Amino acid sequence: MTSATFDFSPLLPAGLPTPAARWTGLAKYSFVGGNNDPEQVPVAGLIDAATAVLRREGKTLATYGLAHGPQGYRPLREFLTAKLKRDAGIDCVADDVLIVSGSLQALDLVNATLLARGDTVIVEQDTYQGSLNRLSRLGVNTVGVPLDGDGMRIDALASALADLKRRGVTPKYIYTIPTVQNPTGTIMPEARRAELLKLSKSYGVPVFEDDCYSDLIWDGKRPPAIYTMSKNGGVIHIGSFSKSIAPALRVGFIVAPWEMLSRMLALKTDAGSGALEQMVLAEYCAPHFTTHVPKLTRGLRAKLDTLMEALNAQFGTSAEFEAPAGGIYLWVKLPDNVDTLKLYQAALAAGVAINPGPEWSTDKARAGCRLRLCFASPSHEQIREGIAVLAEICRREFGVPARSANVEKRARTSI
Amino acid sequence: MTSATFDFSPLLPAGLPTPAARWTGLAKYSFVGGNNDPEQVPVAGLIDAATAVLRREGKTLATYGLAHGPQGYRPLREFLTAKLKRDAGIDCVADDVLIVSGSLQALDLVNATLLARGDTVIVEQDTYQGSLNRLSRLGVNTVGVPLDGDGMRIDALASALADLKRRGVTPKYIYTIPTVQNPTGTIMPEARRAELLKLSKSYGVPVFEDDCYSDLIWDGKRPPAIYTMSKNGGVIHIGSFSKSIAPALRVGFIVAPWEMLSRMLALKTDAGSGALEQMVLAEYCAPHFTTHVPKLTRGLRAKLDTLMEALNAQFGTSAEFEAPAGGIYLWVKLPDNVDTLKLYQAALAAGVAINPGPEWSTDKARAGCRLRLCFASPSHEQIREGIAVLAEICRREFGVPARSANVEKRARTSI
Repeated sequence: MTSATFDFSPLLPAGLPTPAARWTGLAKYSFVGGNNDPEQVPVAGLIDAATAVLRREGKTLATYGLAHGPQGYRPLREFLTAKLKRDAGIDCVADDVLIVSGSLQALDLVNATLLARGDTVIVEQDTYQGSLNRLSRLGVNTVGVPLDGDGMRIDALASALADLKRRGVTPKYIYTIPTVQNPTGTIMPEARRAELLKLSKSYGVPVFEDDCYSDLIWDGKRPPAIYTMSKNGGVIHIGSFSKSIAPALRVGFIVAPWEMLSRMLALKTDAGSGALEQMVLAEYCAPHFTTHVPKLTRGLRAKLDTLMEALNAQFGTSAEFEAPAGGIYLWVKLPDNVDTLKLYQAALAAGVAINPGPEWSTDKARAGCRLRLCFASPSHEQIREGIAVLAEICRREFGVPARSANVEKRARTSI
Repeated sequence: MTSATFDFSPLLPAGLPTPAARWTGLAKYSFVGGNNDPEQVPVAGLIDAATAVLRREGKTLATYGLAHGPQGYRPLREFLTAKLKRDAGIDCVADDVLIVSGSLQALDLVNATLLARGDTVIVEQDTYQGSLNRLSRLGVNTVGVPLDGDGMRIDALASALADLKRRGVTPKYIYTIPTVQNPTGTIMPEARRAELLKLSKSYGVPVFEDDCYSDLIWDGKRPPAIYTMSKNGGVIHIGSFSKSIAPALRVGFIVAPWEMLSRMLALKTDAGSGALEQMVLAEYCAPHFTTHVPKLTRGLRAKLDTLMEALNAQFGTSAEFEAPAGGIYLWVKLPDNVDTLKLYQAALAAGVAINPGPEWSTDKARAGCRLRLCFASPSHEQIREGIAVLAEICRREFGVPARSANVEKRARTSI
């Protein structure tokens, strides 16, 4: 930089986030991000799909949105209506669906349609970091509702709503990941969904249902979507192909009443989401989705087993967790004296990337000894090695697990 | 809608745009949008590219951003650095390039990095509607600088800058489409680019160079990019594959100093732009771009000729225009009594879509009798028919062109 270099800094507005650092690659043992198993990308099927759909409709790429309008490639929306009916009980038509560039764009559009600085929303106490970061950037207050093994606790939600009402605050939405909750992996049962809807109705607060992991359930069984259980249409439902097919394809979707969809469309000024990815997904998924997903989840389940075995072997009783019913992450509690923000730094220096709990929770103190471990992307061997390295770092930094733990636990798990 | 329907309206923040209307399809004769010629989409080449790149690297779709980091698929960035060097004289490396989801996302990222409500920017008086709409939504003031046959007038720019300075206003950027200006089709010569840079430097106002149409020049010759002529790095350069390959592929790019790119990256929270489209473009473009584009522009040039002939035949001297040196649109002046906003409505009812001038200009009054006609998407026959219908509507609504015009003009053009 010489003195002749143009200085942009006086022009920058207040409140910009910290500049990004240069990309330095993925960690050797990466337990972060919604990445999936490279061996499970249906490459041959995607090639066949790309070939067929381009041969048949490639010329339509000359028109923005393939002349299917701003809601997205119609065959993909039609695949989705059939899939959502079959899997989630959602009765909708293609015109109720908006295809977006990944469910992150769905978060942005819902937020842009409903939120202003100073607003309040209700979220699950432990929840997706990307949602929390967005709300924080928007200057929106988050009220975290504790979870149990069945997801968001309804008694706590009722208290939070009553408390906000007393203070004259109407929250803009109740954000929930009810089906394979991120990061806890819980699935909210149907009865609790009904209770949630009762509260939503009585307080006039819509439900924002993020179902992006709902395809990845070990036994393939899930309760109906909150969207479909609602009698009054006060639910916005979003989902994604990132988890079921491949995260580098940026295709998600929103199902919502037209009152809201038309508002979001007015804010979606991107000239449509990528058409080739929509075309290839529609062409691939229509015949193959129902056979691909169970194969994928079997593989994920096996990796989860490897992860839990490795944690038991390396951390012994120091690592507490509940086996999730699906998904690609495990939410782990370490002893109270472990600070996972510090562990994160030390582990990263040793080539192990983890998600420290405080970044995934509205209760930073409670989440201080917790961490999220994603298991879909690393190989079984990398999972075993990475957890061994993590245990070593944790022992060095915090004295836990005790060196004897793995011996003790190995004996136990071999029973 | 029953009384039991959830009412979102009390929850909506102030300032939302008007809700979108239901999509009703493209007009029969569509002269709007950056759509291209369906016959020129290189379908076979894209199929080969998709097959090759998926076979070789399809598994990497399991990782967000293909593990190439948030700046995008590295081979595409490498293709771009070579292409930008060859065509625009830009000397940059892959790490200076950020791949985005179409150049519309580039506009959003540059705006988010530099603009706050109440700020001022300088734009060309007639300019891209999407840029004007974005600035208006952001509450940013636009100062329009008149154009001549060589693009933005430097004397007028100097006056605008001096005037703003007197009023204590530092504009955040000078936005220009210097190479096939939208909508006027002009190309700013190298000498004028140098003068623009002098003013940029002396006032400390960066240049925002939108080069998204620069590949579509009839003779393939273009001046160096303003970005590369800058001695102080005070230029942000954006471009796109929408015009050269296909608009439904949402892939654009930003070249900027790291000081700015790192700021934009921090705001690009979409987990990467669609990977498949990046992969296919890189694989297709590296061997085929330089043969594909001249073939495409020959076809576009022929459609422009058809459009100009049709205008001459149907409108006679009532339609004034300069043949552009490239691009996919013609900027047309009709007699002063024609109101193209009204013409737009009447024409649309008759199946002809046009861009009324006031939507493409900061000077709504001057642009009132002007319109933009895009010619890449309709067939030669549709161009002829559509312009005949447009002339008929214009005659009915405004009395011009006189009925004799086409006869008079046909006689002239046959000489």
